[in-house]
Amino acid sequence: MSTALIFDLDGTLVDSVYAHVLAWQQALAGEGIEAACAKVHRRIGMDGSLLMKESARDAGVKLTVKAMGRAEQHHARMLRKLNRHPMPTSGAPSFLKALRRAHVPWGIATSGKLAEAAASLKAIGVLRGDTVVDGSVSQRAKPEPDIFLECAKRLHSDPSLCFVVGDAIWDVLAARRAGMQAIGLTCGGYSESELYQAGAFRVFSDPQSLRLSVGQLGIDL
Amino acid sequence: MSTALIFDLDGTLVDSVYAHVLAWQQALAGEGIEAACAKVHRRIGMDGSLLMKESARDAGVKLTVKAMGRAEQHHARMLRKLNRHPMPTSGAPSFLKALRRAHVPWGIATSGKLAEAAASLKAIGVLRGDTVVDGSVSQRAKPEPDIFLECAKRLHSDPSLCFVVGDAIWDVLAARRAGMQAIGLTCGGYSESELYQAGAFRVFSDPQSLRLSVGQLGIDL
Repeated sequence: MSTALIFDLDGTLVDSVYAHVLAWQQALAGEGIEAACAKVHRRIGMDGSLLMKESARDAGVKLTVKAMGRAEQHHARMLRKLNRHPMPTSGAPSFLKALRRAHVPWGIATSGKLAEAAASLKAIGVLRGDTVVDGSVSQRAKPEPDIFLECAKRLHSDPSLCFVVGDAIWDVLAARRAGMQAIGLTCGGYSESELYQAGAFRVFSDPQSLRLSVGQLGIDL
Repeated sequence: MSTALIFDLDGTLVDSVYAHVLAWQQALAGEGIEAACAKVHRRIGMDGSLLMKESARDAGVKLTVKAMGRAEQHHARMLRKLNRHPMPTSGAPSFLKALRRAHVPWGIATSGKLAEAAASLKAIGVLRGDTVVDGSVSQRAKPEPDIFLECAKRLHSDPSLCFVVGDAIWDVLAARRAGMQAIGLTCGGYSESELYQAGAFRVFSDPQSLRLSVGQLGIDL
């Protein structure tokens, strides 16, 4: 078995975090929850229902299951508007191509739903045979380790040989609970120190700069 | 002369930074400049033309004066769409009210234009007699110290007695060059460590938490 890379999607491979923030803020406002953008930002990447519940608790509001369903749809609608043309983060498509060429096992593990991620996956050049695990594989998305463990399984890799690459502290925390090392990227808007404090093994600015230093992970491209 | 507070506007008193990020990203894209959201985020609060020039340099593109004018208008249009109802940051309106009541001199100093800031000023309850300094008072907006110095002058306060309250490292850097202490707020999306590294005197999460600890600045509310 060889070293494998497991990538988060939003904020890591596509530049969609800020659109998610505004979409969630509006969706929550629609249910009477005032949520500050900076706080929503720090919750992007965790499971959507956790994000809603934590924001509701902050605002002292109780959300029904029905209201959460409405907010989720509102968010998806807003996101389609704000993120019509998903932009890859710097160097993402060429890094994935290089990994494919070098036969380094890699996959994508996202808390979101595959249907919502289709445009993003297309923007970074994901092909039919590539490994993509979405939130539907488990009741428990990030910061639970389930989807990373499932991705490792599909890559036939041992968790101890996997590096998770993510922009959010939820990626870092979930990776640690999965027995994996986490590589933080600041291209989702978290600062370097937040990612190191969460326990990141190394922090880079984006896929481009990770690729230039991927030897630090023992990977030879 | 007594201690005075000089507030930044966007991200500090109103929750508008994330809307600014998407508006600038789209405005820059309109001129052929691909700019990552996280990078634009870290440039919000600096002078608009500096933001455009630095983003253009990153992308290896040269911007004409005409293109900058177009991008500026594009940004203003997008911002009106994305930030139709400016939301105050937590505790901002009540903090300003309390300062007024206690006769603590305070003012607002923003790199933006007064016309664009009207809705935000209204949302936080700024009154006709309050001191507001905008980017038009100087050719050199933040991180130059000019608008903070002008604000101190209008408040009849010595820079050494002024605390600048801001969410961006540009506020902190400009405050230091003005001979003022800077109070960082994380409600604009910067992390605590980034603000301390820039030289902030103290860092709080939002106006609400600053108000609860304003005694740390020797202010008795």
